[in-house]
Amino acid sequence: MTAEGVPAGELMAADIAEQPRLWRALLARRAEFATVAAKVAAHPPRFVLLAARGTSDHAALYAKYLVEILLGLPAGLVSPSTMTAYATQPHMRDVLLLVVSQSGHSPDLVRTVETGRRGGALTIAVTNTADSPLARAAQLHLDVGAGTERAVAATKSYTAQLLALYLLVDHIRGRTGAAADRVPDLGEALLAKADLAPLATRYRFAQRMVLTGRGYAYPTAREAGLKLMETSYISAQAFSGADLLHGPLAMLDAQIPVLAIVPSGVAGAAMEQVLPRIRTAGADLFVVGSQEAVAQADAGFVLPPGAPEELSPLLEILPFQLLAIHLALIRGENPDAPRSIRKITDTM
Amino acid sequence: MTAEGVPAGELMAADIAEQPRLWRALLARRAEFATVAAKVAAHPPRFVLLAARGTSDHAALYAKYLVEILLGLPAGLVSPSTMTAYATQPHMRDVLLLVVSQSGHSPDLVRTVETGRRGGALTIAVTNTADSPLARAAQLHLDVGAGTERAVAATKSYTAQLLALYLLVDHIRGRTGAAADRVPDLGEALLAKADLAPLATRYRFAQRMVLTGRGYAYPTAREAGLKLMETSYISAQAFSGADLLHGPLAMLDAQIPVLAIVPSGVAGAAMEQVLPRIRTAGADLFVVGSQEAVAQADAGFVLPPGAPEELSPLLEILPFQLLAIHLALIRGENPDAPRSIRKITDTM
Repeated sequence: MTAEGVPAGELMAADIAEQPRLWRALLARRAEFATVAAKVAAHPPRFVLLAARGTSDHAALYAKYLVEILLGLPAGLVSPSTMTAYATQPHMRDVLLLVVSQSGHSPDLVRTVETGRRGGALTIAVTNTADSPLARAAQLHLDVGAGTERAVAATKSYTAQLLALYLLVDHIRGRTGAAADRVPDLGEALLAKADLAPLATRYRFAQRMVLTGRGYAYPTAREAGLKLMETSYISAQAFSGADLLHGPLAMLDAQIPVLAIVPSGVAGAAMEQVLPRIRTAGADLFVVGSQEAVAQADAGFVLPPGAPEELSPLLEILPFQLLAIHLALIRGENPDAPRSIRKITDTM
Repeated sequence: MTAEGVPAGELMAADIAEQPRLWRALLARRAEFATVAAKVAAHPPRFVLLAARGTSDHAALYAKYLVEILLGLPAGLVSPSTMTAYATQPHMRDVLLLVVSQSGHSPDLVRTVETGRRGGALTIAVTNTADSPLARAAQLHLDVGAGTERAVAATKSYTAQLLALYLLVDHIRGRTGAAADRVPDLGEALLAKADLAPLATRYRFAQRMVLTGRGYAYPTAREAGLKLMETSYISAQAFSGADLLHGPLAMLDAQIPVLAIVPSGVAGAAMEQVLPRIRTAGADLFVVGSQEAVAQADAGFVLPPGAPEELSPLLEILPFQLLAIHLALIRGENPDAPRSIRKITDTM
């Protein structure tokens, strides 16, 4: 029980539980995405830049995969300091600049949008706060509609960002996001059966962890790591499966559990080269993913089948969000209010 | 003493010691960079993409800052899996694709170059192996000339990549890289006086670390973290100073030392918002950087003044390379030959 009389973890649990309902609400607003996509089509971009911080940066990374794979366009994640601290004015003609932020508040992202506009980019703010400086600074705005997030660690705003970015990209390529229609039901089924408390016991005394995934599942690894850092203060490092083999693999031993995201499809198949190396290093392997992948791990969480691979990240992150709560609680922490950080972070 | 009769750490120490001499040799070959830059000027790029893995990916990240700040062009780091596992063919007209690799061998990077060429990009391979599949696949090639690296962990090939990428970008903007002429002397002075053994004693029992920097110094934080992971098996996490505040800060306490890169100039000034938050979290703070920044930390290493900020990364990484050796040795490991990994890593 915290000072406010709310049992520790209840705010975050409530945020998490809301997600399938919020996805449905977002899908019902797809006309807004069609409108924005039509404006993008009037200035077809040749290059897509994304800018974000923290959890939103993982949604931006997901969008980078969508842009590269579904639109076939080159894309990049902006280093905001180049436009803020270094005050450069890049040439941005034919660039679509997507800026993703829960609060819509951080001065460095507002400055990035302003710089992008001056340089000739078409700018879209994707925020959870319609009346925010970022939403006002960009030419176009999409509200992810996750409502007030009561826990400090972002959960429902993250998956709402993922779905909003998917709907935007799918509309830009002339579709309607219909592939997402089943995902809220799958999310509800997943949450109804998920019991992550035993897994929290398994990792109760772990100080270090490695998370890994490839392709669309790599942003999940990054975001899962951040949740575990924020709520349970674990040194949770995320690597793409390929990057893990280029050096960090040396660090692995039986004391560092590896949590891998291995869904059905291309992202999971691309991990086939990686998982045996993790096992050879002696690490304990937990898999969130397909039945087949989980069967080959020390422990795992099976995702409900039926989501197309590009929408699997909405489901993959759910068990990690729940694990973050249980792990924080069993370690004596309050996941709703991590030390040292606040809900809105302003960086320059 | 290892099986080969070479005292542990001597190979890596020899690689490290060679660096200033190799930088001089590279500077003497600047005509090659002028030639390649002239070919780039014949097809002026509007976007720059970079692809790399492991240590080379940190050199690519450095180049991304160079491109954004010195050329004012939008840039992005390619996710190779989009072209390999997902087999997309992006539109690459007006794109300059720089692929950086020590060995020039990894199949995913060769495939990335081939895909880039088919898509209309101008491709440049930056490798340490002139006769390599990557060098042959790209239209243009630059040899960083670091010679055979005998330790598994990359050191001299990294700073040679940094300098080669700097020379390329500086020539593309119509200059000759003259600002780099003093850097070999500065590197020699630094290595002559550097004694990192006491610092290894300080961190002997640390299992977790955080490295941080902003702007041009952020790639240094990433590469320093990788060296410590590879040779000393520490969970060394690197964050840009701004990203650290968006969540991971919660993880910090007195048990997690923070190693910050705070050079003179913009990158150092941009850390002013970050360092007090690290101190408030109770973390032990070590600084590599300017005299003023080191004076405010618990411990530090002062960089010799005189390098322009964009070349400071060549110097910043040197104390971390040395720390990686000493720390591995005091922990009973052989930094020349980390467990589980090989010199050449092929990823698909």
